[in-house]
Amino acid sequence: MPPLLPTAPYRGTRDFLPEEMSVRTQVFSRLYETIETFGFQRYDGPVLEPVEIYEAKSGQELVERQLYVLTDKADRRLALRPEMTPSVARMIAANAGRLSFPVRWYSHPNCHRYEKPQKGRVREHWQINVDVFGSESVEAEVEIFELIHALFRTLGADPSLYEIRVNDRGLAFSALERFVGLAPEQVKPVFQVLDRWEKLPREVCLEQLAGHGLDAAAAAKVEAFTKLDFPAFVDAAAPEVRGESRVARILNEGLLDGPLRFDPLIVRGLDYYTSTVFEVFDVSPENRRSIFGGGRYDNLTALFSKQRIPGIGFGLGDVTLMDFLETHELKPAPDVSPDAVVLCAEPSLRGSMKEVAARLREAGVKTVTPLDGGGLGKELKKAAKLGARVAVLVGAEEHGRGAVIVRDLARSEQREVAATDVASEVGSTLAR
Amino acid sequence: MPPLLPTAPYRGTRDFLPEEMSVRTQVFSRLYETIETFGFQRYDGPVLEPVEIYEAKSGQELVERQLYVLTDKADRRLALRPEMTPSVARMIAANAGRLSFPVRWYSHPNCHRYEKPQKGRVREHWQINVDVFGSESVEAEVEIFELIHALFRTLGADPSLYEIRVNDRGLAFSALERFVGLAPEQVKPVFQVLDRWEKLPREVCLEQLAGHGLDAAAAAKVEAFTKLDFPAFVDAAAPEVRGESRVARILNEGLLDGPLRFDPLIVRGLDYYTSTVFEVFDVSPENRRSIFGGGRYDNLTALFSKQRIPGIGFGLGDVTLMDFLETHELKPAPDVSPDAVVLCAEPSLRGSMKEVAARLREAGVKTVTPLDGGGLGKELKKAAKLGARVAVLVGAEEHGRGAVIVRDLARSEQREVAATDVASEVGSTLAR
Repeated sequence: MPPLLPTAPYRGTRDFLPEEMSVRTQVFSRLYETIETFGFQRYDGPVLEPVEIYEAKSGQELVERQLYVLTDKADRRLALRPEMTPSVARMIAANAGRLSFPVRWYSHPNCHRYEKPQKGRVREHWQINVDVFGSESVEAEVEIFELIHALFRTLGADPSLYEIRVNDRGLAFSALERFVGLAPEQVKPVFQVLDRWEKLPREVCLEQLAGHGLDAAAAAKVEAFTKLDFPAFVDAAAPEVRGESRVARILNEGLLDGPLRFDPLIVRGLDYYTSTVFEVFDVSPENRRSIFGGGRYDNLTALFSKQRIPGIGFGLGDVTLMDFLETHELKPAPDVSPDAVVLCAEPSLRGSMKEVAARLREAGVKTVTPLDGGGLGKELKKAAKLGARVAVLVGAEEHGRGAVIVRDLARSEQREVAATDVASEVGSTLAR
Repeated sequence: MPPLLPTAPYRGTRDFLPEEMSVRTQVFSRLYETIETFGFQRYDGPVLEPVEIYEAKSGQELVERQLYVLTDKADRRLALRPEMTPSVARMIAANAGRLSFPVRWYSHPNCHRYEKPQKGRVREHWQINVDVFGSESVEAEVEIFELIHALFRTLGADPSLYEIRVNDRGLAFSALERFVGLAPEQVKPVFQVLDRWEKLPREVCLEQLAGHGLDAAAAAKVEAFTKLDFPAFVDAAAPEVRGESRVARILNEGLLDGPLRFDPLIVRGLDYYTSTVFEVFDVSPENRRSIFGGGRYDNLTALFSKQRIPGIGFGLGDVTLMDFLETHELKPAPDVSPDAVVLCAEPSLRGSMKEVAARLREAGVKTVTPLDGGGLGKELKKAAKLGARVAVLVGAEEHGRGAVIVRDLARSEQREVAATDVASEVGSTLAR
């Protein structure tokens, strides 16, 4: 005999057993429904994508360190998609001629990143992606933020539990450049330091700034920059970029009916964001971290098409979302029990038992029948263990008069009803 | 400017645009529901699995030619799962101690096989997997066949449109060995010839038999074997294996309420099947091919655990299923239109427009509001193009008296209603 193979899933990936899967399904079904009430249409795409679509604009860290890459027999370099945005930009570009913009699309792909597994971070996760393509209007931003508030509402989360933090990369670029006195080529590396400002100790951040050529005075200005309020931040930016900022319009004109907080530290790790960027944070002290984020990427489809098609959207992964729901006791309970079991008193009644089960299933009742010939008592115990709420018993005597017994397992009450009425009797027992 | 990147998905994989995705979602939602009425619980697992779990029992062709393999930085050899059965066997073995058998599980993973793309065959497909673990009873087989009939029923397919063809590998092994006079080690290669008997020309099959050392007389007997009816087939097998066959019991005792046809050519390509094997065929002349298949694999969990846990199940992929539905005009229509658009006559009414939209969304109505400031006429045309059934107009005058106009776009009728009643009015318009 060869040695037994390990039963654990590959490091950083997860098996979803039915109880956990039921929670995942319930949470994401609610999200799908809410997203669809905003008129978004679901799409899907392949796990494997050409590496090139990430190399251009997704950022060095992702491509060099986090991609799972393989080469096929035709020497194509393929990646397991680490995120969905380049794929959806590809699809939009491919079909731009027959789409009516603005296009509202969403998807729920599994994405892979080669990361060190830790709290909130895995190698394969399931991510809801929501994007609006083809609108330069600030109303696209507003709709995305309204949708985010609606998603939390449908999960039972009050706006006091989370925070949408927003920034504008265009504004931030100009403000940082002018406030600190940076050369344009220094801004991007300083953005990368800002992106981790709250995650790393102060000294590490200052060291990194020094590594990018900033002297102590400049580093002190960066530190002051991180504490700017929105009016001061806007003042720091060049006058010609202030008027372009959708974030400034939303905050100044109160366009969003719901909370939104400016944060100069939100710059996002992906290179393709062009202006609006945001992250949604859990505000509870036990889980004070980013749940997800997104932004506006007006040039991403330019990889694939000469037609200008601006985009804005976000990706919401299952791991950080479940951590948030767990922190706030908003996770739904697993729902994996059958509604009913149908049992028979003797093997000759199996056919009738099957007929009763078929009737219940036709009516949408989750119905289990025994496979192995245990006695009634044993099967009733099994039914209780499975969490069934109703047992239907096909006994010889009752069968003789065309009847069955419907037992409410929670209340230990039972009634004899005509076999033809079994679905409605079980239905009303379940509805109690 | 770098050259534009191609917009086509990787060869053999597919983009699902919303219309196609809507069809896929509708079809598989119905399947989920029906599977759950049989008490099956949904689970999920990772795309990446150790190569070893396929090497042992999935068969040479799959492992050597069809696996996408990559090596991670820790030198683990990983495959993109080509099928779900080894994964689910791994999970069942890992959790056997806390499961109550029989276990009924289903999943809907994306699976990858490196194949030459052709009709009905792609490199990434979405496959429903349904399995029963922990029962040796013939009733597990019966339930699986009943479920298959129920799945076709829920898709609107009558049993005259398809056929479940069944065989028993144990019976077939013995019958083939004795009827043709084969040595035991010759049976497996001859099975592989039988597996392709209907797909390849007769001469090719006979050549292959000769290649496995069968002379003309033996080859003629193999050919005669392919035409045996069930009683003759059973007679050919050794008496001691006849009594063990669940397939023989089902056929002889009429245990299944629904059609089932014996076919000595069904042997299945995967090595792990131990007895019952089946394939479901489209019987229409235009699409006479296997839609999906499955079988009993009583030793697969033995890769991972010393506990004996028999299994039986099937995998139903989206490509062949959609071909079947298309052949028989059973594909549901795409459903991607919003229910309603909400428009306002002037920018100052945008706030009220948003309130109306929020009210509709709360009531579950799929509601779109315009992002860019087109005029009412232009936006109404867009709404019609999107397929919206209702437009709600927020005009200055009506707004002054707390009212909105609800227009039935199909009937070109409209009514003024109180803004607070908009959800019920739109609801009844949609229900017409």
